Amino acid sequence: MNVVLRNPPRVDPALAAQFKPFGVATIHEAQGRRGVLASYMRPIYPRAQAVGTAVTVSLAPCDNWMIHVAVEQCQEGDILVVVPTSPSDAGYFGELLATSLKARGVVGLVIEGGCRDIAALQEINFPVWSKAVSAQGTVKETLGSVNVPVVCAGQLIRPGDLVVADDDGVVVVARAEAETVLRASAEREEKEAKTRAELQRGVIGLDYYKMREKLEKKGLVYRDWTPED
Amino acid sequence: MNVVLRNPPRVDPALAAQFKPFGVATIHEAQGRRGVLASYMRPIYPRAQAVGTAVTVSLAPCDNWMIHVAVEQCQEGDILVVVPTSPSDAGYFGELLATSLKARGVVGLVIEGGCRDIAALQEINFPVWSKAVSAQGTVKETLGSVNVPVVCAGQLIRPGDLVVADDDGVVVVARAEAETVLRASAEREEKEAKTRAELQRGVIGLDYYKMREKLEKKGLVYRDWTPED
Amino acid sequence: MNVVLRNPPRVDPALAAQFKPFGVATIHEAQGRRGVLASYMRPIYPRAQAVGTAVTVSLAPCDNWMIHVAVEQCQEGDILVVVPTSPSDAGYFGELLATSLKARGVVGLVIEGGCRDIAALQEINFPVWSKAVSAQGTVKETLGSVNVPVVCAGQLIRPGDLVVADDDGVVVVARAEAETVLRASAEREEKEAKTRAELQRGVIGLDYYKMREKLEKKGLVYRDWTPED
Amino acid sequence: MNVVLRNPPRVDPALAAQFKPFGVATIHEAQGRRGVLASYMRPIYPRAQAVGTAVTVSLAPCDNWMIHVAVEQCQEGDILVVVPTSPSDAGYFGELLATSLKARGVVGLVIEGGCRDIAALQEINFPVWSKAVSAQGTVKETLGSVNVPVVCAGQLIRPGDLVVADDDGVVVVARAEAETVLRASAEREEKEAKTRAELQRGVIGLDYYKMREKLEKKGLVYRDWTPED
Amino acid sequence: MNVVLRNPPRVDPALAAQFKPFGVATIHEAQGRRGVLASYMRPIYPRAQAVGTAVTVSLAPCDNWMIHVAVEQCQEGDILVVVPTSPSDAGYFGELLATSLKARGVVGLVIEGGCRDIAALQEINFPVWSKAVSAQGTVKETLGSVNVPVVCAGQLIRPGDLVVADDDGVVVVARAEAETVLRASAEREEKEAKTRAELQRGVIGLDYYKMREKLEKKGLVYRDWTPED
Amino acid sequence: MNVVLRNPPRVDPALAAQFKPFGVATIHEAQGRRGVLASYMRPIYPRAQAVGTAVTVSLAPCDNWMIHVAVEQCQEGDILVVVPTSPSDAGYFGELLATSLKARGVVGLVIEGGCRDIAALQEINFPVWSKAVSAQGTVKETLGSVNVPVVCAGQLIRPGDLVVADDDGVVVVARAEAETVLRASAEREEKEAKTRAELQRGVIGLDYYKMREKLEKKGLVYRDWTPED
Repeated sequence: MNVVLRNPPRVDPALAAQFKPFGVATIHEAQGRRGVLASYMRPIYPRAQAVGTAVTVSLAPCDNWMIHVAVEQCQEGDILVVVPTSPSDAGYFGELLATSLKARGVVGLVIEGGCRDIAALQEINFPVWSKAVSAQGTVKETLGSVNVPVVCAGQLIRPGDLVVADDDGVVVVARAEAETVLRASAEREEKEAKTRAELQRGVIGLDYYKMREKLEKKGLVYRDWTPED
Repeated sequence: MNVVLRNPPRVDPALAAQFKPFGVATIHEAQGRRGVLASYMRPIYPRAQAVGTAVTVSLAPCDNWMIHVAVEQCQEGDILVVVPTSPSDAGYFGELLATSLKARGVVGLVIEGGCRDIAALQEINFPVWSKAVSAQGTVKETLGSVNVPVVCAGQLIRPGDLVVADDDGVVVVARAEAETVLRASAEREEKEAKTRAELQRGVIGLDYYKMREKLEKKGLVYRDWTPED
Repeated sequence: MNVVLRNPPRVDPALAAQFKPFGVATIHEAQGRRGVLASYMRPIYPRAQAVGTAVTVSLAPCDNWMIHVAVEQCQEGDILVVVPTSPSDAGYFGELLATSLKARGVVGLVIEGGCRDIAALQEINFPVWSKAVSAQGTVKETLGSVNVPVVCAGQLIRPGDLVVADDDGVVVVARAEAETVLRASAEREEKEAKTRAELQRGVIGLDYYKMREKLEKKGLVYRDWTPED
Repeated sequence: MNVVLRNPPRVDPALAAQFKPFGVATIHEAQGRRGVLASYMRPIYPRAQAVGTAVTVSLAPCDNWMIHVAVEQCQEGDILVVVPTSPSDAGYFGELLATSLKARGVVGLVIEGGCRDIAALQEINFPVWSKAVSAQGTVKETLGSVNVPVVCAGQLIRPGDLVVADDDGVVVVARAEAETVLRASAEREEKEAKTRAELQRGVIGLDYYKMREKLEKKGLVYRDWTPED
Repeated sequence: MNVVLRNPPRVDPALAAQFKPFGVATIHEAQGRRGVLASYMRPIYPRAQAVGTAVTVSLAPCDNWMIHVAVEQCQEGDILVVVPTSPSDAGYFGELLATSLKARGVVGLVIEGGCRDIAALQEINFPVWSKAVSAQGTVKETLGSVNVPVVCAGQLIRPGDLVVADDDGVVVVARAEAETVLRASAEREEKEAKTRAELQRGVIGLDYYKMREKLEKKGLVYRDWTPED
Repeated sequence: MNVVLRNPPRVDPALAAQFKPFGVATIHEAQGRRGVLASYMRPIYPRAQAVGTAVTVSLAPCDNWMIHVAVEQCQEGDILVVVPTSPSDAGYFGELLATSLKARGVVGLVIEGGCRDIAALQEINFPVWSKAVSAQGTVKETLGSVNVPVVCAGQLIRPGDLVVADDDGVVVVARAEAETVLRASAEREEKEAKTRAELQRGVIGLDYYKMREKLEKKGLVYRDWTPED
């Protein structure tokens, strides 16, 4: 039942690279408001950013053995996605594992658990999105699996899927949808640039998005404030 | 039942401006330890600060339509206060809405929900105090109300009330009490400056606040530590 | 029942000073993965660090009177450890108390409650690890105790124990074990430096830690990914 | 600043009594989906029910002194609503206070804090809705207020307002709106009875509420499941 | 993007029925400790039990429109599984919808959100496992999907999968694995019956499971307690 | 470092038995408001009650091996107290272990983790106080310790200490203090019986406890409610 799946297909690196200009919120909107991980997944330092192809790890709670196994399956441009089979916030990951991953070109870690050595990780610029920061160590006793589908913070992530993370959190894009979502992200970004310009010069959303009629139809009432309010 | 109340009376801008030197903790103490919002309301970046008059928004959960409506009701010096009718941490607010509010002179946002585009908001220096950071988008389907009284993170806030926010959180001052609280804040600050000077040169609180007798009366016992302790 | 215990024995200052190069995670591992406080204890600003001998305070919830009492019991190199008898996240501690503690050479505060004046505390460089940031004030009505054993965030702390805190959280080292733990920390650090060098040049943990045989024995299966996976 | 307000006007007892057949969900809907307290307010035993006029108490955290003061202000048909000024889950209330309240005809307690003596309270049939069950005792040191407006679990409650509570939680009806809400509740109940009969005999909501056209307009697509789904 | 998938294949009713003697814990163990939903999914009344084939619903937060749509897709022996696209604990479901589902032979509801009319649901014996109990109503404005794969409380559930729920929580069994898991459950149950008999007559696990040698090898030390411990 | 301590001294069974008439709240008050475990420790079924001498277990998270080891150390009248070294809510304990413990005369379990087989445990009348109910299984891989001091839900518990648990939660009484606390509990109970009788016949606490003067001194103001309030 515990298995390491080698060489899953990944989103093409050239395609993945094109996601770099786009933020998590934009990509999430571009794929129909899907794919955002739960909001408790937070970066361990401000301005962290990562775009990578998922190597997934399902491991026993408070046991980081399978992260060591996963390192070998990682290649340039990957991002590690780690989920314990039972919730826990221990410190599964620290500077030594990050050193090893950096040496292989891995761009970051997403872990539904805890992480430690925060200061060192920021120094070597290895970004992590985690549920907790915790110095509590873990053991190496129980097997798990690598590159199987996992549910991380409420989202299904498959090996090779695209994972993008920044200050706003983490979003996953299914491998097969990456091209479509990339195009939609670019379109959305372009549209937003125009909107931004309009809003900056004082046009408001009610007019720009033509909302007034719809609001009226739904029955919104405007009146002056009175002391009884 | 859904209504936009225009032109509620606001704390006078000149009066509001005088609150700027005072922190949230000081103002809260000055009004008798009242008015602090729940501690889960956190700034999205360090050193954020805002003093403004509340424009309140009651909206449907995961629906940010009424924020667009509220923009039009905002004027120079306002701060937006947004509360969903059912708890939710979706990302109701981002850079575009901030751009629009900044163009109208709004000084910040307090939202009992989620916020996104954190990096951009810090760049354009638009401070937000929120319950969560989340990239999860919202819809524009259901009406709500603007400038009605709202309960935000445990405190009643009325349109036109003064809202002050900093690293320590958020405090609300009722419109009618603003002058009194301002005076009390100044007095408290002055008193604290004197205390600080004394403490810095080594006087301790027990002596400075004359607490020894009261402690003794209550029965506090002093004795040396022993190995049995 | 309420008592202030004077002059508990403390870990020797010279010994305590030698812990400074070591992080919380290292020390925790060096003492057999024990002593880490719950992960909700977070520093109020990044890169905060402190090594000190505990002066413990057990106080009534939302009542900071005993912190004032504890100040007098503090000496150079101490760290204050404060626990309310019932959970609460009010703002027990702020800049004035920090000023007083700094004047006595206290190196920081660990509090299973709330803290305020965050900006000022960072400015005067007085680090705090707390469960919450809250501007909510407290009273001075009910007695508590100083230098009794306390349970803080899941760990027993005795007066005079060594407390180390950094970005990763807080760890306690029992007074009697400080020397042993110091030696073990140094050994671990040395070993990690070697490991780091190996990992940096691309050796992976599976080989470095010789895990392959143990994994095989436990039954880990390797195979190529297939579209059915 | 600490005050006991005597004899606030209350919803008429005869009017209040007519709310008894209606559940919390019905009343909440009948007043436009407003007034429900946060879902963490739970009954301490199943099938608890209460309809009463609010006597409100604002008290210091972990200090139940003002509940004793409030007892005297209670009369037949009241329900006590208790809120600490800072969050806490200590056990403010137990069998003795319940005995006293029962002797005065009080119908229940709503407390944004903890409660104890659960078994005894069920035995004497005194229902409580609380945030926690906790045996942790409280003190009697600090003043608070009785019959001032309070925010309880996210809702503003004024003395004399109608409070209804059952297995589904707690709802507040403003005094001035009680009659209107009663009528609307009765209408809703009647309508639901008809709907229930239809649904029981197999008519489904899509037809009964005539939703099909609206769904189609919004673009809902129906198709058969395929193995690719 | 919003779609209703008709007639997904389901676990055979005769096969599903054979799961009835087994509890959630047993089934979860029998499939290799997989499939348990997060522990915040609790039954709304004690001793609730349900075994059914999943009809899945992905809906907008605080919007229960798609539950009405899903009713039509349900058939005898189904269990409804409902997940909002953004976390929320509003009351999506109550007695009327339950009446409708019962009329179609649906055996229960699993919802990562809130539920209301608890007392009535227990009376008509319609079991629900939910994240919250809440009287807060929802709207019918935004489309969602029926019978698409959903992630509910940390587990992937596909339409037609087997869902079993009892006092211990909820477990999902993938359609393709139902037969294997059934067999394994029966075997486990049988084995446990034998173990139970042995334990009842005083044999302890150390001997029954032959753990002593393995414990010794790992280095477990036995010694008498001393006053220093 | 992992050790099983045999035969710790226990509170005398005859003494322990005398605690049975007293509730958790009473005992907690009788020992000066100390010893109550955090309020998230809840009984798995209503009206559960237990009085026993602690056998303590410190175990690895999501690993219940040491509970099997602890069974052998248990004797008639003990109560098991189990704490993982890192927080987790997996299901460490179920019917089989309960069967084994019952066969040895153990009266219940207190576990800062999860428990399963709730229905069966109620049937065989084996009470458990836990942080969660969870069907999620655990492993048997890592050593821990038995009969060492543990911190459980915020309280220090030593082997042989008295543990009392009921609907209100769990309280610990140190072995050396059991006699004193028993006496104080009896006195408190007696006093409360008198108070109860007075309150039942309508005397209120303000008079019975002679609080009026103290309230007045502190400055409590009484006045009639006015429409401005």
